[in-house]
Amino acid sequence: MGKHVGEQSIKYDKPPQIIATATVVGPKEGEGPLARYFDKILPDVKIDSDTWESAESGLAKQGVELAVAKAGLNLADIQYIFAGDLLNQGIGSTYGIRSLERPYFGLFAACSTIGEAMTLGGAFVDGGFAERIVVAVSSHFCAAEKTFRFPLGMGNQRTPTSSWTVTGDGAYVIQQHDASKQSPAIVGSTAGKIVDFGIKDLTNMGAAMAPAAADTIIRHFEDFNTRPSDYDMIITGDLGHYGYELLKKLLADKGFDITGNSTDCGIEIFDKEQQDTHAGGSGPACSAITLAAYFLPKLQRGEIKRVLFVPTGALMNATSAAQGETIPCIAHAVVIESGVREKH
Amino acid sequence: MGKHVGEQSIKYDKPPQIIATATVVGPKEGEGPLARYFDKILPDVKIDSDTWESAESGLAKQGVELAVAKAGLNLADIQYIFAGDLLNQGIGSTYGIRSLERPYFGLFAACSTIGEAMTLGGAFVDGGFAERIVVAVSSHFCAAEKTFRFPLGMGNQRTPTSSWTVTGDGAYVIQQHDASKQSPAIVGSTAGKIVDFGIKDLTNMGAAMAPAAADTIIRHFEDFNTRPSDYDMIITGDLGHYGYELLKKLLADKGFDITGNSTDCGIEIFDKEQQDTHAGGSGPACSAITLAAYFLPKLQRGEIKRVLFVPTGALMNATSAAQGETIPCIAHAVVIESGVREKH
Repeated sequence: MGKHVGEQSIKYDKPPQIIATATVVGPKEGEGPLARYFDKILPDVKIDSDTWESAESGLAKQGVELAVAKAGLNLADIQYIFAGDLLNQGIGSTYGIRSLERPYFGLFAACSTIGEAMTLGGAFVDGGFAERIVVAVSSHFCAAEKTFRFPLGMGNQRTPTSSWTVTGDGAYVIQQHDASKQSPAIVGSTAGKIVDFGIKDLTNMGAAMAPAAADTIIRHFEDFNTRPSDYDMIITGDLGHYGYELLKKLLADKGFDITGNSTDCGIEIFDKEQQDTHAGGSGPACSAITLAAYFLPKLQRGEIKRVLFVPTGALMNATSAAQGETIPCIAHAVVIESGVREKH
Repeated sequence: MGKHVGEQSIKYDKPPQIIATATVVGPKEGEGPLARYFDKILPDVKIDSDTWESAESGLAKQGVELAVAKAGLNLADIQYIFAGDLLNQGIGSTYGIRSLERPYFGLFAACSTIGEAMTLGGAFVDGGFAERIVVAVSSHFCAAEKTFRFPLGMGNQRTPTSSWTVTGDGAYVIQQHDASKQSPAIVGSTAGKIVDFGIKDLTNMGAAMAPAAADTIIRHFEDFNTRPSDYDMIITGDLGHYGYELLKKLLADKGFDITGNSTDCGIEIFDKEQQDTHAGGSGPACSAITLAAYFLPKLQRGEIKRVLFVPTGALMNATSAAQGETIPCIAHAVVIESGVREKH
């Protein structure tokens, strides 16, 4: 039995383990600073498809298949897939995995979907309802621009605060705790409330999401009675350069200093100067692949022991924006500990 | 601890109980055959809003608030909200509940979302991660037509197989099993796989969804080693008149006869002849409010003892349809038992 902790948090009884991950990315991500950590860099953003939506579905399918293969398993060994993406009605995920014939739970928390998937999927596994699942999220730059902003063919100029949606898929195989195995494990989660600070600018998502990240992180510290120094790394995403600065300020105002042991996936994934990515990376895949490719291996090796992972999401759509609505945001926090155990 | 059963199913350890529900509906639903069972019939489909999307958010907010009030609780007693709807990026739910300040898990399984919500929410509660949650889904006829088909202002003629999206919200308060209480309880679930039979007609969703319903129902019987006669009622939704006939035929072909003890929420909710609703009702709210308003009270009173509830969903979007894609569908099955216990 898991348990509810404080106001918005849960603790797993036997922490579910992340036994394998897959990161499949587009060419731009494959030219960035994390290039050598990704499993598969696709040469063409079209991914053998006629449409951007179908290209994203291709990523979603490849991600799940590769994660399962890297775990040394077959699809039949996966009892459920928890997945989501940014496209209307989640078609990146549904069309991607429809041929895989696995029971499917569709999730939506925008760019924080991987956090929701780890929280709910982890609870499902820890609660005894499944031995082994896959959680997966995808995004595609061209499909996202078309969905939320402008078709690329218009050639609009990008504002300095705009982010660059990551083209990629991150898929994790999560299974019931096995004490004989050394894999990073999900030990606790803090689910986010919807926080809306009145931002309306679709090209400044970092500013919209930072208050949601601050709200969840502060609630997490309170629920678990921890402080920033209790974590080797606090990894947000995808706030980007401006949102991350704002988050640090919001937390400092409440007495929490994360400057020495934190970063944001939107900052890590691209080289701002070389790649012309302005505020940084975004999209559900941004935080999912940065965690999987860069940070989980450090946890696996024991180089870091305990991470607070806080993916962030903006919950508007193109219609709500056109109607003058503000942008509601959410952040889900997940605590991941190294599989390398020390005596406490 | 819950457990995994067969291929796609789960069984709850201490079945989570549905202690209260709310059904808030629009005027057309309030003129239908189930009118007297609904909690709240709103006089105007605009629901004091400037936009259809905002009207749906209003429904979503009212549904959650009323369910909590009917349970004799405050919002602070609800630890998590699991919710979803049909609009792009789930804005019906997110804008509806953003002011409620409760941790939020966004779900998407189209018109089967209530089944996903009961399955995952039930597992979360039974697994010990929450004492009490709300699961909720909404839909709005005008917002759905605009999202998936044509703006109402065009005055398009409706085809005979088209369904009428229900304007409403269904919200359930689900809490950990308390043997001293007599409330209907969720005892098991079978999660659906995505099934795509190649249907492309956005005005014939029943035909697209029937094969998914058949797939999940047959899997359910196999996983639990049951037969149709083991259930007092098998309640699908929202297949409508044509989809329900097709489902019965698909099941009969596999040796399962559900003709004597089944119905479909899309058939129950409107009067086909009097209300000009063609194939019947649809939308996430259709099955959620029909179950809550009409069938759960029968379970509560012990008039029926065991129900197999199978909401169905179509997972396309307007873009995939325009691109010539077929419609992938899903159905999630949930077993609900009466709170009135007999000696077995």
